[in-house]
Amino acid sequence: MRKVLLGIGMTIDGYIARPDGSVDFLFMPKDFSMAEFFKRIDVAAMGRKTYDTALKMGGVMGGGGMKTYVFSKLLDAGAHTDVKIVNESPKAFVEKLRAKEGKDIWLMGGGDLTREFLREDLVDELHLGVVPTLIGEGIRAFEPGFPEQKFSLVENKTYSQGLIALRYDRNRSGEAPSGA
Amino acid sequence: MRKVLLGIGMTIDGYIARPDGSVDFLFMPKDFSMAEFFKRIDVAAMGRKTYDTALKMGGVMGGGGMKTYVFSKLLDAGAHTDVKIVNESPKAFVEKLRAKEGKDIWLMGGGDLTREFLREDLVDELHLGVVPTLIGEGIRAFEPGFPEQKFSLVENKTYSQGLIALRYDRNRSGEAPSGA
Repeated sequence: MRKVLLGIGMTIDGYIARPDGSVDFLFMPKDFSMAEFFKRIDVAAMGRKTYDTALKMGGVMGGGGMKTYVFSKLLDAGAHTDVKIVNESPKAFVEKLRAKEGKDIWLMGGGDLTREFLREDLVDELHLGVVPTLIGEGIRAFEPGFPEQKFSLVENKTYSQGLIALRYDRNRSGEAPSGA
Repeated sequence: MRKVLLGIGMTIDGYIARPDGSVDFLFMPKDFSMAEFFKRIDVAAMGRKTYDTALKMGGVMGGGGMKTYVFSKLLDAGAHTDVKIVNESPKAFVEKLRAKEGKDIWLMGGGDLTREFLREDLVDELHLGVVPTLIGEGIRAFEPGFPEQKFSLVENKTYSQGLIALRYDRNRSGEAPSGA
């Protein structure tokens, strides 16, 4: 089954962006690579505010056959040909993708969309890059308002400049099935 | 100089407690020990709400000559003989301790007191134990409202049951001195 991977960079205090959406505090050390991650995915999904920030920063990452989806009830699909506009629930979106053959799905955030995915227990893996900074304010990786969920730590690696990369798998064993 | 060590357990989504103050999601794996940490400190400091929770859970950890301080403008010092009530700013508190010989200072939180310490750039080290859970709501390790601060990753260890222990030192190089 195609998995949903939440893949984000964040500060020690849990922010993915400053209040204005900028992410200048993030960095990618030379010894760190996202190549293995990118091999696994062919779909990227983000919220509308994250898309706005991406446009300001020069456009949406793509290529290699990756399809990018932006969740928005307001954007005009015809006016945004670089991405596909999604006007349905995360659950319906994921179910449609899972009905088709394909690779895994990259959930890029931001905080609001991540919360919607977590509300429906749709996230299968967390891929977190943590930079050694406290910024004290901003947009949170995990906005409050979703049920408790256990994970298993799969990978914990230290890279140069103090970046750590954590990978957690959702651990649904011993829990009542979602929606029960 | 006596250092201030923020030492806390937290979830992946950055909570130190549930909304009611309970911390049942925290755990201490057999292969993990706080002995080295305790050797370094002889003072513990916490906020009033954290103290309330500690009392509900059976009292304040102590012994070994450790003095425990609770920051509160309301509590009656005479009625709480297990701890010392502090009715001054974190900065004055730390300066007084630093004027005396002694070991390092354990800042136990919670979120409000940690923010006050971070506002004054009083935290020298972070000692974070991260449990592999998202709880979705609660009291945050890092409440917003303090200036950006860089850290250096000193230690990143994985323990059983998916606990990771991170230690960061405050990196003040290249920054204007606090208060400048």
